[in-house]
Amino acid sequence: MANTTIDNPAQQKPHDQMAAYLADDLDAVDMLIRARMASEHAPRIPEVTAHLVEAGGKRLRPMLTLAAAHLCGYDGPFHIHLAATVEFIHTATLLHDDVVDESAQRRGRPTANLLWDNQSSVLVGDYLFSRSFQLMVETGSLRVLDILANASATIAEGEVLQLTAAQDLKTSEGTYLQIVRGKTAALFSAATEVGGVIADADDNVVKALYDYGDALGVAFQIVDDLLDYQGQSSATGKNVGDDFRERKLTLPVIKAIAKADAEEHAFWKRTIEKGQQEDGDLDAALALLNKHNALSDTRDEANAWASKSTRALSSLPDHPIKQMLIELADYVVERIN
Amino acid sequence: MANTTIDNPAQQKPHDQMAAYLADDLDAVDMLIRARMASEHAPRIPEVTAHLVEAGGKRLRPMLTLAAAHLCGYDGPFHIHLAATVEFIHTATLLHDDVVDESAQRRGRPTANLLWDNQSSVLVGDYLFSRSFQLMVETGSLRVLDILANASATIAEGEVLQLTAAQDLKTSEGTYLQIVRGKTAALFSAATEVGGVIADADDNVVKALYDYGDALGVAFQIVDDLLDYQGQSSATGKNVGDDFRERKLTLPVIKAIAKADAEEHAFWKRTIEKGQQEDGDLDAALALLNKHNALSDTRDEANAWASKSTRALSSLPDHPIKQMLIELADYVVERIN
Repeated sequence: MANTTIDNPAQQKPHDQMAAYLADDLDAVDMLIRARMASEHAPRIPEVTAHLVEAGGKRLRPMLTLAAAHLCGYDGPFHIHLAATVEFIHTATLLHDDVVDESAQRRGRPTANLLWDNQSSVLVGDYLFSRSFQLMVETGSLRVLDILANASATIAEGEVLQLTAAQDLKTSEGTYLQIVRGKTAALFSAATEVGGVIADADDNVVKALYDYGDALGVAFQIVDDLLDYQGQSSATGKNVGDDFRERKLTLPVIKAIAKADAEEHAFWKRTIEKGQQEDGDLDAALALLNKHNALSDTRDEANAWASKSTRALSSLPDHPIKQMLIELADYVVERIN
Repeated sequence: MANTTIDNPAQQKPHDQMAAYLADDLDAVDMLIRARMASEHAPRIPEVTAHLVEAGGKRLRPMLTLAAAHLCGYDGPFHIHLAATVEFIHTATLLHDDVVDESAQRRGRPTANLLWDNQSSVLVGDYLFSRSFQLMVETGSLRVLDILANASATIAEGEVLQLTAAQDLKTSEGTYLQIVRGKTAALFSAATEVGGVIADADDNVVKALYDYGDALGVAFQIVDDLLDYQGQSSATGKNVGDDFRERKLTLPVIKAIAKADAEEHAFWKRTIEKGQQEDGDLDAALALLNKHNALSDTRDEANAWASKSTRALSSLPDHPIKQMLIELADYVVERIN
C-alpha cells in the first residue's frame, strides 16, 4: 500500500486517501486473502489466484466493507473476514468472466485463461467462491450470509442476462440496468451493507449504506461503459472501442439505437447483431453516438447515479469516512466530466 | 418417480426401494428445485437447468440427505431444502465438469455446453451454486452452512487437483483418493451429515452418517472408474475405454503403472502422458491391467470401501432406512461383482 503521495493528503485521490485511513485493516485483509488462497493439495490454486490478486487491483470492494464497518463504529474482527469474502467473490467472477468473454488481458496482464487454461479459471473460480463462503460462515451472522447469498444469485443472474441480451438490438435501458446491477452493483451494495450489518447498525443506516453501494456500483459501471467510447487506453487499461468490437450492447449504443433511423438501425444490426465489422465502422459508430448525444446523455446518467449515492449518505452523522465515501463517488464520475 | 416394479418390492433395486419409501419427500424436493431454478430475468437459466435436472438423474445425493434426516427422526421442513441444496451443488459441478472435460454427452444426452455454449454452462453453474447457498441459509443452521461450505471447497480443490494430476504418471493412490474424496465423496458425506445435523442427532450418529457417506462416495467413484474398463456401455452410459482415451489416470491404471516394467512404463507414458494413442492400444492397456491384477485389485478396494460404509452404520439403532442404506452400499458394488 506504499504510496508516493501519502505525505501530501491534499493531492491524494479519494481512493488513496481511504486506503491510507484503512491501511492497517487492508493489511489484515491482504494477509487473510493470502492465507485462504492457499491449497495444501493443489498448488495451481494459489498460482492462479496470486496472478490476479497481486496484479494491483484497487481493492475497492473490500475497502467499502471496511469503510462501512468503521463508519458504524464496529470494533470486532469480522469486517476483515467480510472484506476478504467480497474480494474473493470479485476475483472468482473475474476468472469466470474472462472465460466467458474469451478475454486475453486483465489489469494490463495476460488473463489466467490464457496463461493456464479455461479449465483452471473455471475451477479456481469455484474454489475461491467456496473459500469466500467459508469466510462468511465464520462471522456467524445469518443476516450477512443471507445478504451475500442473494448478492451471489443476483451477480450470476446478471451475467447470464448479459450473455443472452448481448447483440440483441431490442435490449432496453431497463435490461441494461438489470445487467449492471448484477455484474457490478450487487457486490458494491452487498459490500457496504454487510459492513453495517456486522456492526449491528440501525436499519436506516444499513439501508443508507446499501443505497450508497448500489448507486455507486451503477455509476461505476456506466462510467466504465462510457470510457470504452471516449477514454484513453492508458487511463482505463482498455482500448477505445473494445465493447464495440466485442459487440456489447452498452448504454451509449442502446441510447443511439433508440434514436436511430432505418439506415442507422441497419448499421447497428450489421455491426453489433451480425458482427460484420469493417474498417471505419468504429468511427461511424462514434459519429452516431455523438449525433444523438448518446455519450453526453450517458454521462448525465452516470452523474445522476453518483449524486444519488452521495444523497443516500445524507442522513448519516458526520464522520471522516462519510466524507471520503462522498469524495469517492465524485471521483468515480470525475474521469468522464 | 413412477416405477414398474413398485408393486413388487422384492424385485426392486435398493435405490428404487428407497425412492418409494421417500416418495412424498422426493416430490417436495422436485417442486422446490423447479421453483428455485426459475429466473425472472434470464430464461436461459431454467432452460439449461431443466435439460440436466429432467434428464433422469437418480437423485441419489438428495435421497441420502432425506434418508439421514428420517433415520434421525427429523420432522421439520428443512431436510427438503438441504436435499435440494445438495442436488443444486451436484448439478452446478456437472455443468462445470462438462466444460472442463469438453464433454459431449451426459446421461445419454448432449451436454449443455454442446447444446448452448461453455459460457452458459459456466454462468448457469454459478447461478445454481448461489441458489444452493440461498437454500441452505434458509435452514438457519450455521453448522449446516459450515459443513456445506467446507464440502464446496473440498469439491473445488479435488477438481483442480484432478486437472493438474491428470496425465502425470507419478500420481499415487493417495492423490487419487484425495481427488475422489473431492469430486465425489465430499458431497456424499455432506449429504448424509447435514441430514443428521438438521435433525439435531447426537455427535456419534452424525459421525456415523458422515463416515457412511464418505466411504459410499469413494466406493461409488472407484466402481465408476473400474466400469470404465470392464463395463457394458448400456449399463453405464459410458463407452469402455473413455477414461483411457481421455488420458485419465484412474485407480486401475495407477495400480498397473506401479507394477510396470520399463517397456510397460513406456507404453503408459506414450498413451497417457503424451496422448499418442494408436489402434489396439486400448486392448494392450486392458491386457496390462489384467496381467497385474489391476482390475481385480481395484474391485477388492471398491468392496472394502462399501464394507466400510455399512460398518459405519453398525452402531445405529434398527430402522427400515438403515437397512436400505446398507443394501444401497451393497448395490453400488454389485455391478462389479
